[in-house]
Amino acid sequence: MSYKAFTNDDYQALLNIIDDKDRVLYDEIQEEYGHDELGSVSCPPDVVVRPKTTAEVSDVMKYAYDNNIAVTARGAGTGLVGACVPIEHGILMDVSLMNQILELDDDNLTMTVQPGVLLMEIGDFTEEHGLFFPPDPGEKSATIGGNISTNAGGMRAVKYGVTRDFVRELEVVLPSGKVLTLGGKVVKNSSGLDLKDLIIGSEGTLGIITKAVLKLLPAPKKVISLLVPFPTLRQAIDTVPKIVASESVPIAVEFMEKDVILDAEEYLGKKFPDHQSDAYLLLRYDGNSTEEIEAEYEPIADLCLESGALDVLISDTQEREDSIWKARGAFLEAIKGSTTDMDEVDTVVPRSQVNEMVAYFPEVSKKIGLRMKCFGHAGDGNLHTYMLKDDLSSEEFQLRLGQAMTLVYHKAAELGGLVSGEHGIGYAKRAYLEETMDDVNLELMQGIKQTFDPKNILNPHKVFQS
Amino acid sequence: MSYKAFTNDDYQALLNIIDDKDRVLYDEIQEEYGHDELGSVSCPPDVVVRPKTTAEVSDVMKYAYDNNIAVTARGAGTGLVGACVPIEHGILMDVSLMNQILELDDDNLTMTVQPGVLLMEIGDFTEEHGLFFPPDPGEKSATIGGNISTNAGGMRAVKYGVTRDFVRELEVVLPSGKVLTLGGKVVKNSSGLDLKDLIIGSEGTLGIITKAVLKLLPAPKKVISLLVPFPTLRQAIDTVPKIVASESVPIAVEFMEKDVILDAEEYLGKKFPDHQSDAYLLLRYDGNSTEEIEAEYEPIADLCLESGALDVLISDTQEREDSIWKARGAFLEAIKGSTTDMDEVDTVVPRSQVNEMVAYFPEVSKKIGLRMKCFGHAGDGNLHTYMLKDDLSSEEFQLRLGQAMTLVYHKAAELGGLVSGEHGIGYAKRAYLEETMDDVNLELMQGIKQTFDPKNILNPHKVFQS
Repeated sequence: MSYKAFTNDDYQALLNIIDDKDRVLYDEIQEEYGHDELGSVSCPPDVVVRPKTTAEVSDVMKYAYDNNIAVTARGAGTGLVGACVPIEHGILMDVSLMNQILELDDDNLTMTVQPGVLLMEIGDFTEEHGLFFPPDPGEKSATIGGNISTNAGGMRAVKYGVTRDFVRELEVVLPSGKVLTLGGKVVKNSSGLDLKDLIIGSEGTLGIITKAVLKLLPAPKKVISLLVPFPTLRQAIDTVPKIVASESVPIAVEFMEKDVILDAEEYLGKKFPDHQSDAYLLLRYDGNSTEEIEAEYEPIADLCLESGALDVLISDTQEREDSIWKARGAFLEAIKGSTTDMDEVDTVVPRSQVNEMVAYFPEVSKKIGLRMKCFGHAGDGNLHTYMLKDDLSSEEFQLRLGQAMTLVYHKAAELGGLVSGEHGIGYAKRAYLEETMDDVNLELMQGIKQTFDPKNILNPHKVFQS
Repeated sequence: MSYKAFTNDDYQALLNIIDDKDRVLYDEIQEEYGHDELGSVSCPPDVVVRPKTTAEVSDVMKYAYDNNIAVTARGAGTGLVGACVPIEHGILMDVSLMNQILELDDDNLTMTVQPGVLLMEIGDFTEEHGLFFPPDPGEKSATIGGNISTNAGGMRAVKYGVTRDFVRELEVVLPSGKVLTLGGKVVKNSSGLDLKDLIIGSEGTLGIITKAVLKLLPAPKKVISLLVPFPTLRQAIDTVPKIVASESVPIAVEFMEKDVILDAEEYLGKKFPDHQSDAYLLLRYDGNSTEEIEAEYEPIADLCLESGALDVLISDTQEREDSIWKARGAFLEAIKGSTTDMDEVDTVVPRSQVNEMVAYFPEVSKKIGLRMKCFGHAGDGNLHTYMLKDDLSSEEFQLRLGQAMTLVYHKAAELGGLVSGEHGIGYAKRAYLEETMDDVNLELMQGIKQTFDPKNILNPHKVFQS
């Protein structure tokens, strides 16, 4: 691959498309545009373009296509695998100003948004209207475009599924600049190959999402959580398949250990409601009334106690509910605050293999000499594990990180799992996807990439590309 | 495209792969193998192969690839658009003997099946185990391979979604004979392009499904239906968005008119529980107890009455429940029995446009001079409309059919709808997909086809191919 070197003439041409110097950044580009949240890979763009309309995205893309300039899309930059880092410099397409909620359709229960709308804005908007967008990743300041691009899942996947399940229609600008509409405000579709789902989770390698029609649900009126201490983590996790197979499907089943809870307490300066155990399950139920939810969780509380739980604490006040979930929401930042630098893996394994996977992390930690912390979605097998630098040198950290990740990803594959449950592959995990995935599978992905992007100008070096 | 003419040598070669003359049919091939359920397109295969294992599918496919012979996969042949008709003759791969349920995984709530397992067999098996596979197309003798290949939806899509939402993993034999595994027993996945969803709904054009891991749910213990007569169909359908936006999401919302009900009564020789109106909504609720379901449907019954319903009949006995759904299940056969020949459209439109679409059918019927009957899934906008030959000549029927379909598909597109909600495009609807879909979209589909099947030997002339 070789791309045209970006020059002042190109800058002038982009200014002809977007006639606003505040939206075409060239001379002074903030450092943040060169990396994402985790920052393990960094590369500055030549220019940052901040479109407000699909037409602007299309015109910029067409210019880049005609002139062979690499283009990388970026939302809020909250990613953890470098998917929005412009490895070949070129144009960074920052869609954060495309932040309008375009429509609420009551009859079809959909909302139409531009890609830069934040998850927290969708949350506020739907709540105001008595509606509900179930995907619930921890990072509420992420854009919906980013969530769709990684097929983010979050905590409510046990009951409701992931982002993919709530995208009815996408408008996408192809590398050629052509604008494509995929899907529709329809519930069923058997009309040709499913290109919409190909875009979802493609991490900006096939097209730039410029509009999305999201499926909404009527909002449940009430949420109640159960905090369940267990003597051991193994007992806690062994109980999860029984919970999920019961009549009453919780919206979330999280596991957490005391050390991560203590980090969160310190980070928030607030006490967690319980300290009696080293291991907890956190279950959440929703419904239309307290009575309805009680009928759901009561047999599950009994089931937990029969499976060895020490107690079942019901969050029957909003205060307690908030304190538990605030702690849960702070885990990532709390762990980050406890060390000098870190990287993460977000493997997903079958629910039945969560214990095997969780038990393997301390083994790796000991073998490699790398402090690791883990928490995550026991109900859906998606485990977030953090590898901490502490006082290691950068070189030593990188070395041990590579060794630890190789062990973890191969173990996940052995257990029928995959590299990423929701954070994506981006740049940082490409080698591990290649190591654990069949060559035939990778070749098909490359063939599809070639079909969408024959010049390979869109987000090169990401996900599956050599 | 030109394919090798199939000879006796090829037959002998296939017998070397599958050493069983009962599973390689050459001299005497039943007429049924040349068409599907509707039979509007017909073409006999040169040979029928009936594999029992993935290895056999792979070896046959590799032979076909090396020798440039067209291959078409077939399940139970219950399709309605000619997707399993071997237009270029060649090899028909009948997977109906791959009919084993391979595993029930209680911890992950999945079952693993071969593609030839029938929907009714999955229903019986899951019921025995207190589990539930929600996709519920009317045709229970269809194979799961066929259901996945068309992304069939059925009646429960309002609450549970479609087949796509319940496929965790697929094993697929590519045109080259290579075997690929996509997805896994995992709930979340953000590990590269979503090839699994590309296979789902691809109607056998990209690969042959040889194994599927299906997501199951705990079975609801109780089902109750509401039969709701309205003065007019328009009032009935206008009520649907209000029902779906309420707190209590029904599993199904069907609409039906008296003339179709009368056809069904005659076909079944049994009376329908109500005759007071020309138009009905049929709602179905599920849950774990009668009390729970009552709490759900009671506000909906009130809502229907406020919206003009004449009555709300609760199917509080199994007998009444059976009589209603038996009638609903017989609609297709009953209409078929009322005429000499027919064809169908299964357009899907946004829920808000169902009335517009339904009101258009009598206009088309009158304009073209073709009797039409319609029923379907009001809750998900998927309308099944039948165009009846009666005493028209074959030539005249074909002529009017083409005119009527063109009008209907263009109207659907105008309303934001798509050609097919669940029956697929196959051979019969290709022209209409091409007419109503963007060229860029079609070109991408063709490019993907080329990546998977560079020799175009797998199910040629189907869906999007020229």
